[in-house]
Amino acid sequence: MSQIYNRVALIGLGLIASSMAWAMKRDGLGGEIMGYARSEETRQTALKLGFVDQIAATAKDAVKDADLVVLCVPVGVMGAVAAEIGPYLKAGTTVTDVGSVKAAVIEAVSPYIPENVNFIPSHPLAGTEHSGPSSGFASLFENRWWLVVPTENSDAEATQKLVSLLQAIGANVETMDAEHHDLTLAVTSHAPHLIAYTMVGVADDLNRVTGSEVIKYSAAGFRDFTRIAASDPTMWRDVFLNNKEATIEILGRFTEELFALQRAIRQGDGDHLHDYFTRTRSIRRGIIEAGQDTDAANFGRGKKAE
Amino acid sequence: MSQIYNRVALIGLGLIASSMAWAMKRDGLGGEIMGYARSEETRQTALKLGFVDQIAATAKDAVKDADLVVLCVPVGVMGAVAAEIGPYLKAGTTVTDVGSVKAAVIEAVSPYIPENVNFIPSHPLAGTEHSGPSSGFASLFENRWWLVVPTENSDAEATQKLVSLLQAIGANVETMDAEHHDLTLAVTSHAPHLIAYTMVGVADDLNRVTGSEVIKYSAAGFRDFTRIAASDPTMWRDVFLNNKEATIEILGRFTEELFALQRAIRQGDGDHLHDYFTRTRSIRRGIIEAGQDTDAANFGRGKKAE
Repeated sequence: MSQIYNRVALIGLGLIASSMAWAMKRDGLGGEIMGYARSEETRQTALKLGFVDQIAATAKDAVKDADLVVLCVPVGVMGAVAAEIGPYLKAGTTVTDVGSVKAAVIEAVSPYIPENVNFIPSHPLAGTEHSGPSSGFASLFENRWWLVVPTENSDAEATQKLVSLLQAIGANVETMDAEHHDLTLAVTSHAPHLIAYTMVGVADDLNRVTGSEVIKYSAAGFRDFTRIAASDPTMWRDVFLNNKEATIEILGRFTEELFALQRAIRQGDGDHLHDYFTRTRSIRRGIIEAGQDTDAANFGRGKKAE
Repeated sequence: MSQIYNRVALIGLGLIASSMAWAMKRDGLGGEIMGYARSEETRQTALKLGFVDQIAATAKDAVKDADLVVLCVPVGVMGAVAAEIGPYLKAGTTVTDVGSVKAAVIEAVSPYIPENVNFIPSHPLAGTEHSGPSSGFASLFENRWWLVVPTENSDAEATQKLVSLLQAIGANVETMDAEHHDLTLAVTSHAPHLIAYTMVGVADDLNRVTGSEVIKYSAAGFRDFTRIAASDPTMWRDVFLNNKEATIEILGRFTEELFALQRAIRQGDGDHLHDYFTRTRSIRRGIIEAGQDTDAANFGRGKKAE
């Protein structure tokens, strides 16, 4: 695969940025990779690990000569970063971001993007519960969705070039509008995360109040919730604050359904429960068929001995 | 390892029974293994796979000469099975069950257990989202908890012998009373399952109502929920109907906490969210330290390429 951009600047050097960098380096796609992170420790780690070629002391130094700038910072600071780098962006440069929320990021970033620069928001549906510069790996995006959300002003040719890069590092790319993106993610990611955080919090309370060791016996179910609830707190705070309406809309539907199932339990309505559980089981099948998860039991946690 | 029981009867031949059988066979622990399942197809599959030595045509034929009888049927039919086999149990035999609920099973089964038979309820905290006779594997119980819930009438020596078997097939055994068991499991397993079922149902509704493909973009979070929500519908219906009070108690606490977080989102209270998420993150650490899950990113779904 040949180089797609001559110089890429990664602003923020956590899981997504380091994984992008490893993937671009593996395939010789990104030319020179320049990195910037707010924390000196993160900058030094990135340089030591070697996924960036150079480290800049400021965000504006990082973007100066870049053909592609990728904003990999929490959603809540996208606007501030854009304000800082805006005046230093080269004419013709493409700027994208990897935030989990799109409408709010577009609103925050767009005002700072010069007319001769292409802002093409995006969002990779890939991640793990780990964060920071040491957590990245080149295969993170393989066969994962990367949603591209062009704005009215996104140039078609520049968009196509960005899409080529994302596909080259393994992602399946689709484009959609910001509103659809934010509702979809509220259902498939944001609400589930909030629910997992809540359930883990409840267990922790019970642990402390009763002095019993409920968490010690973490069975399947809870164990999976704790993984989800181990995700980066700052990132998730910003997601909820910036996708407020869609998240609250989905939580409202969730609570309604939960109350209906709770009522079925209270009333001993086994048929209602059985029908519901049969329906949800079939949805799993669809996700495995779509190649978005493994059918291996327990995600392949345990290997079959027989 | 030497044989602990001469003849073991497994009533119900799904994931747990087949995994027990494979583990006992691997280590020569269970002597002759007799199996019974209601469905002819399941019985034939078990015989063909070879994890049972013989298949009985009825539950009472299966238990006749057994030193250990393991009830591996859904919680809702434990009482009916006990009523059927009770008169045919050999003096001195041990009966255990593997139900996810203990108080209701003890209430349902105990009346049918003769005085000269030891009923020692138990519950392995192990499983996958797969079910049926083909889903078992010998290492399922390795380093997993197996909770033993002796009743007033459980003989100490018989209990110790059962514990030896469970430990020999890899489990960490602890004893506790039925009420504590049921509350603990409501927190760590039953409520999380109901919540996962609910969230998957909400996404499915939205998919159908809006005609949009929300499920296609199943990100981390939702993807994990669908795995949990793919578990056996009959088993889970019975769990909820038989651990009604504890489940409803925990769901009440859950809803309270969820509303508090939802309010924080609505009011833009980022500190509340960040503090909460930081606390739940640390709980994950405890579970990994306790050896109850892997620290590999995404449960080791993707391998690091670098």
